[in-house]
Amino acid sequence: MTDAYPISDLTKLKRHPERGSYDRSVVHAILDEALVCHLAYVFTDPRGTEQVIAMPTVFAREGETLYVHGARANRSLDVLAKGAPFSVTVTLIDGLVLARSAFHHSMNYRSVVITGRAREVEDREAKVSAMARLVDRLSPDRNASLRPMHEWEIDVTRLIAIDIEHASAKVRSGPPLDAPDDVTHPSWAGVVPLRLVASAPIADEHVREANVPPIAPQLSAGAR
Amino acid sequence: MTDAYPISDLTKLKRHPERGSYDRSVVHAILDEALVCHLAYVFTDPRGTEQVIAMPTVFAREGETLYVHGARANRSLDVLAKGAPFSVTVTLIDGLVLARSAFHHSMNYRSVVITGRAREVEDREAKVSAMARLVDRLSPDRNASLRPMHEWEIDVTRLIAIDIEHASAKVRSGPPLDAPDDVTHPSWAGVVPLRLVASAPIADEHVREANVPPIAPQLSAGAR
Repeated sequence: MTDAYPISDLTKLKRHPERGSYDRSVVHAILDEALVCHLAYVFTDPRGTEQVIAMPTVFAREGETLYVHGARANRSLDVLAKGAPFSVTVTLIDGLVLARSAFHHSMNYRSVVITGRAREVEDREAKVSAMARLVDRLSPDRNASLRPMHEWEIDVTRLIAIDIEHASAKVRSGPPLDAPDDVTHPSWAGVVPLRLVASAPIADEHVREANVPPIAPQLSAGAR
Repeated sequence: MTDAYPISDLTKLKRHPERGSYDRSVVHAILDEALVCHLAYVFTDPRGTEQVIAMPTVFAREGETLYVHGARANRSLDVLAKGAPFSVTVTLIDGLVLARSAFHHSMNYRSVVITGRAREVEDREAKVSAMARLVDRLSPDRNASLRPMHEWEIDVTRLIAIDIEHASAKVRSGPPLDAPDDVTHPSWAGVVPLRLVASAPIADEHVREANVPPIAPQLSAGAR
């Protein structure tokens, strides 16, 4: 396996290609930081009209496979399981880029677009393992501390594996890029960094001991 | 105009309808907090194959219209301007929901899915006004302090208005919903609140005065 994904028409970076990357390590790092992806797909409504939608969902990565899950009747999973075209987008927002002209305003961000093959995971052991991975993304090693899964819970959960075929990342970082003539304009210009912060966990009413779980390492801890 | 959006096949909430809303005020509040939306659309690649993708982009709302913008050659805007099917998704992440069983783990979130009619804005005054609105979303009243727009900047920027026709919101909030039999299990359970936080602005190398601009009010201020 090479270090870069092959390029497809969908993942090819046309605008600002200098911000792009097809490197697996760059794509993986963005995937592993994000808590949510958007599944884009087409479905046919009851009138027979094609509709296109992007649905947010949690996911977990294992090597070159992403796992998504949901209820048996979940439309997104149904579309994926049937082999219909889809793609996956992950977007992290890193900052507001405030320039001296409206034109050069921007956002700092890291995003990934992926296409691949979706397959339903039916093997129970593989299913339980992926479901544990989805939980452990929210809090490291959490699954081991939980009430073991019931058989019926495994049955009613549909699990889809997406084997990544093509992927590209796009990253904007750093200060605004004002035109040389504009830098003497008196507006403040620069970057306002943004990050997703976890604040103090709120125990539910049944918790007896204050053994607060660890939080996913990519989340900045705010006031605890 | 009623207070609720009409329901379509695309925006109808099927899973957990109790979490859903078609109220304009609920949808507007989510739109106005989000910095980025995902445009989902279909395009035909050079081989003639249909591809589906969700592209992140900044946007601004004015009444029942969303504005998105980009370069003339931007594929997403081109697809929208041509009247192809599309939808808009906005997702805000509010917290990790840690239950005592893997099955009841969840996220707290607020999301919106919208369909509507896209039209290109050609009128210069309307275009300048929408471009100013896009900038002012990042920092209140910012556009007034900027170097005025050049004519060529207005020319090379493509601006698309999306008139909302159907929209629905979905919101999960509050503690985990463990089964009654599970609440004595010793795992910690509760919510880890998440929020997007702005940290201290970083001036670029040309800034002479520390007149830091105001930040969009929906962003929590971290250490400044």
